[in-house]
Amino acid sequence: SRELFVLTYGALVAQLCKDYEKDEDVNICLDRMGYGIGIRLIDDFLARSAVKKCRSYSETTDMIAQVAFKMYLGVTASVSCTSAAGNEFSLILDKNPLVDFVEELPAERASLCYCNVLCGVIRGALEMVRLAAEVTFLQDRLKGDAVTEIGITFLRKAEDRKHKRN
Amino acid sequence: SRELFVLTYGALVAQLCKDYEKDEDVNICLDRMGYGIGIRLIDDFLARSAVKKCRSYSETTDMIAQVAFKMYLGVTASVSCTSAAGNEFSLILDKNPLVDFVEELPAERASLCYCNVLCGVIRGALEMVRLAAEVTFLQDRLKGDAVTEIGITFLRKAEDRKHKRN
Repeated sequence: SRELFVLTYGALVAQLCKDYEKDEDVNICLDRMGYGIGIRLIDDFLARSAVKKCRSYSETTDMIAQVAFKMYLGVTASVSCTSAAGNEFSLILDKNPLVDFVEELPAERASLCYCNVLCGVIRGALEMVRLAAEVTFLQDRLKGDAVTEIGITFLRKAEDRKHKRN
Repeated sequence: SRELFVLTYGALVAQLCKDYEKDEDVNICLDRMGYGIGIRLIDDFLARSAVKKCRSYSETTDMIAQVAFKMYLGVTASVSCTSAAGNEFSLILDKNPLVDFVEELPAERASLCYCNVLCGVIRGALEMVRLAAEVTFLQDRLKGDAVTEIGITFLRKAEDRKHKRN
């Protein structure tokens, strides 16, 4: 049913573009929706994947890239750790099925993060397993980048608290 | 990836409920979105199902109920012909995966056709194989009915023209 999903997602983004003039507002809304989806989807993921508890950020990120992406989007992502501290990772997607029916972003929507729902989903799902993270698009083929890259920064407890205070 | 789809669809309906006060407007919008999806989804359906040309309304309806519903929603519907003229059909769904995460409609949304996108999808897809039809929800378990029932009325050429003129 992936095509129906991808087209329905397209209808959702189109509706938000009608609702909000600024790309930034659409992006925030997609992220927020994704968060709401992620906090519910995690139960389905844990039940169906039957994974054991991850013992490191690296293991958690691999689980998202290899198991969760495969389960929900039908593709896997490659992972690289991007900080010496070991809490920042990139998920690289060669192929992003969510944009299968999108040729390119219209010129007046150049700042739209079309797939921003994914960031929210990951953030929401991680929060439900007690991991605070910031998740954002770093590169996007829709914007002319060579690959699609999602950055995950796991927030240490202290950072987390500071983050919430701001 | 059905859960992700179902939750994303829920986010879409929730957004439209924010956008439009009247249920009727949400229903129209969902139907219109579905139409846009259906006219694109039909290519995918024809390619993947490799079906032969249907020779009757009855055969077409069976194809939707048995093959298309299975392909995109993971369930089949049972079909009954509801007019002597042989152009009206009901698709009966015992289980509707689109509402998996919906407990019940809120009291102030009693007229919402939550799954109205399906009517639009069917209408749009049929139009692309040159069949004009009216597609509406006749019963809905979300509204307390015993089953979920979608009515399809194929419009004869004359009716079609009259319909378009109105």
